[in-house]
Amino acid sequence: MREDLAARLRQFAAERDWEQFHTPKNLAMALSGEAGELVAEFQWLTPAESANVMADPEAGPRVRAEMADVFLYLTRLADVLGVDLAEAAHDKLDEGERRYDAETYRGTIRKAPPLP
Amino acid sequence: MREDLAARLRQFAAERDWEQFHTPKNLAMALSGEAGELVAEFQWLTPAESANVMADPEAGPRVRAEMADVFLYLTRLADVLGVDLAEAAHDKLDEGERRYDAETYRGTIRKAPPLP
Amino acid sequence: MREDLAARLRQFAAERDWEQFHTPKNLAMALSGEAGELVAEFQWLTPAESANVMADPEAGPRVRAEMADVFLYLTRLADVLGVDLAEAAHDKLDEGERRYDAETYRGTIRKAPPLP
Amino acid sequence: MREDLAARLRQFAAERDWEQFHTPKNLAMALSGEAGELVAEFQWLTPAESANVMADPEAGPRVRAEMADVFLYLTRLADVLGVDLAEAAHDKLDEGERRYDAETYRGTIRKAPPLP
Repeated sequence: MREDLAARLRQFAAERDWEQFHTPKNLAMALSGEAGELVAEFQWLTPAESANVMADPEAGPRVRAEMADVFLYLTRLADVLGVDLAEAAHDKLDEGERRYDAETYRGTIRKAPPLP
Repeated sequence: MREDLAARLRQFAAERDWEQFHTPKNLAMALSGEAGELVAEFQWLTPAESANVMADPEAGPRVRAEMADVFLYLTRLADVLGVDLAEAAHDKLDEGERRYDAETYRGTIRKAPPLP
Repeated sequence: MREDLAARLRQFAAERDWEQFHTPKNLAMALSGEAGELVAEFQWLTPAESANVMADPEAGPRVRAEMADVFLYLTRLADVLGVDLAEAAHDKLDEGERRYDAETYRGTIRKAPPLP
Repeated sequence: MREDLAARLRQFAAERDWEQFHTPKNLAMALSGEAGELVAEFQWLTPAESANVMADPEAGPRVRAEMADVFLYLTRLADVLGVDLAEAAHDKLDEGERRYDAETYRGTIRKAPPLP
């Protein structure tokens, strides 16, 4: 990675005096809007077509750009809230490994009951 | 970071035979669902309250967990599609710096016209 | 209302041979994408600005069109699934009136515990 | 329909002094959150499974309830903004019929270029 993405976004916002707009509420909305654009790229594709979307010269770059938008807002939100994204994700995956033991859930994907 | 998150997710899916469910279409849906849960955490908060959400002993951990869920599905989607998330985000931010020059957009946030 | 919206959408899909694309899965994705576009219209507005959005000659018509898109996909999804939307909404509101009694929740909006 | 849904929601909000929370910004967020819960119901289903979701004794009622939630927030948002949902939807469908002529788009679903 060239430089820290969160730091670049912080400077980007500061140079434009945009911190006033970057409340967690607004950033969560922006992230949600970009997630909507991402899901829209896949809405009429079959599951098989969706697996080859990056080979499409028009849809492929759009999908990459929408994923980037989601990542940018998520990174900015984490920075504003003081959340360590990677740590939070590893913690959640730890929990997932406990809840979804490989034996019980092999080949079947459904919501597990909460841990005791 | 303890270890590579994408690799951990790949193993998590493989051990449960869940690759069949992890099509890009389905993963984009899952990401969108988690983004919806994240935005729901903020829906009744004022902008000022949203800035202090991490200090709330109930809402704070929920927000962190929802951000983690978004990040997990985004990381898994990027891995399945072969997209380098950090590179894509830096590219998009490069474009943002060209489109939103600091002079014109200082203190005002609105959609810029597309670059020529 | 001029004529039944669900019937018009059914004919619209049939004339284009689009029933094959209108699976509940795909329609739920399309609805989610439009909801994302709707929320994006409000992301940088203050709550007060959002209350006056219809007076904005550019944003107002866009908001109306995004709401229309959500309603179209919701109506189509309900028709495909055989769900009576109005009945379902009244049932849900009945439940809301039981869960959120006016005394306890006056002036305070938060998730109620599930009914016994 | 038993009675007007928008009027019922207006009274529901008034009795709880919730108008202060029901800004268009917040209602759009709530709608987006419910759309996320709806799409999550379908995320691991095949298109064929999604067509039979209402026959599932657990998922069916959940899908109906999530659709109701989307409809309730959409109806409330329209009421607060003074938008006639049915009229807006018919207008949008008029536009769709002009943009997507049945000859050109038969059996193929993709974004049409904007009308001249």
